[in-house]
Amino acid sequence: MALKHMSSIEEKLRALNIQLGEAKPPVGNYLGCKIAGNLLYASGRVSDLKGKVGSDVNQEEAKKAAHDTVLLILAIIKNEIGDLDQLKGVLKVQGFINCTDNFLDLPKVLDGASDLLISLFGENGRHARTATGVAQLPFSTTIQLDIIFELR
Amino acid sequence: MALKHMSSIEEKLRALNIQLGEAKPPVGNYLGCKIAGNLLYASGRVSDLKGKVGSDVNQEEAKKAAHDTVLLILAIIKNEIGDLDQLKGVLKVQGFINCTDNFLDLPKVLDGASDLLISLFGENGRHARTATGVAQLPFSTTIQLDIIFELR
Amino acid sequence: MALKHMSSIEEKLRALNIQLGEAKPPVGNYLGCKIAGNLLYASGRVSDLKGKVGSDVNQEEAKKAAHDTVLLILAIIKNEIGDLDQLKGVLKVQGFINCTDNFLDLPKVLDGASDLLISLFGENGRHARTATGVAQLPFSTTIQLDIIFELR
Repeated sequence: MALKHMSSIEEKLRALNIQLGEAKPPVGNYLGCKIAGNLLYASGRVSDLKGKVGSDVNQEEAKKAAHDTVLLILAIIKNEIGDLDQLKGVLKVQGFINCTDNFLDLPKVLDGASDLLISLFGENGRHARTATGVAQLPFSTTIQLDIIFELR
Repeated sequence: MALKHMSSIEEKLRALNIQLGEAKPPVGNYLGCKIAGNLLYASGRVSDLKGKVGSDVNQEEAKKAAHDTVLLILAIIKNEIGDLDQLKGVLKVQGFINCTDNFLDLPKVLDGASDLLISLFGENGRHARTATGVAQLPFSTTIQLDIIFELR
Repeated sequence: MALKHMSSIEEKLRALNIQLGEAKPPVGNYLGCKIAGNLLYASGRVSDLKGKVGSDVNQEEAKKAAHDTVLLILAIIKNEIGDLDQLKGVLKVQGFINCTDNFLDLPKVLDGASDLLISLFGENGRHARTATGVAQLPFSTTIQLDIIFELR
């Protein structure tokens, strides 16, 4: 019986009941990701969720948006490199969060992304991280993630 | 007849009727760029243009400022490494844009930088990119670009 | 007579009358730093100092906070890799500064970090740098530094 090839990352996604959607095309003149040596730089990707954390959006919703944005990025990478198993782990996550002046718990929001990455990549998924609050993101979105992955 | 050496990047700049100006010195205790392995990290460079996109500055002016800021960065790199042909391509562009809360079209603005980089470096000039709106940039400037180049 | 091993970086810290404190644990699901090849990415670290430059905090206080934040990062790295002499130099510093719209002298603030790094690492401590003003940082802190180090 012939089995369709499925990457172990995709097996894990399936085990988590998560399906990657279609890769969304870049909204400008740039690539979804670019490889240099054994690093893959994913373009910054905003969440589908819109609104400012602390006023329009609460912490749990923002955390979920961070999780979902990782999936948007993985869909883009899969579309570009074909097989997510080429990814070995995660080097760095930079998260920009569109939030009010008085919203302080940015790290908890980004754990939505980090928890998922570690679920998928195990110990290699652990990463350095920076959480930065900003006044505005493209299209009034809630989160923007910039991820550097390591390749096998 | 002896020909003064001109890099192909500079030939392309000339073909585009663009002249690199004098490299502006850093305004603090840092380098214009630093090399690690085959990557060159350019210091973040602000535009000469000042003002906030969405109030003082319109989208076209900001796009032009992004284009011009790439030239400021190339002048700095040329001053430091001597020959722009050492650059092979572009890995990542991070653009910070000083804009009002309701200005949404950050990607179009950054295309001013990306279009030029792709004109100069061809396919190798295509890059991963992140566009982030911020409340303020040094000296009230409009754009700040952070570029990682690949070396030959 | 047996001498306890002391790294030359720590000797320099002692010569500067600086003592590294205890490493503070990450406030979310991320690492203090991660190594890829001969680069070490430190997680973004906020200053202990809180408040916005230009209203609550003045330029000199912010510059001191940038200096002190480098020490927080070095304590974290020492805790993770054991010996600061594995660090050879500094590739890139990204500084986010929580400041008012009308505070312009971000570069002077970040010199507090850069001056210290160059004191400790000498010429190898010179680095590319980006200074970005933001409306808010986690826990209302004043400065956030993101540093990429080079390893020996």
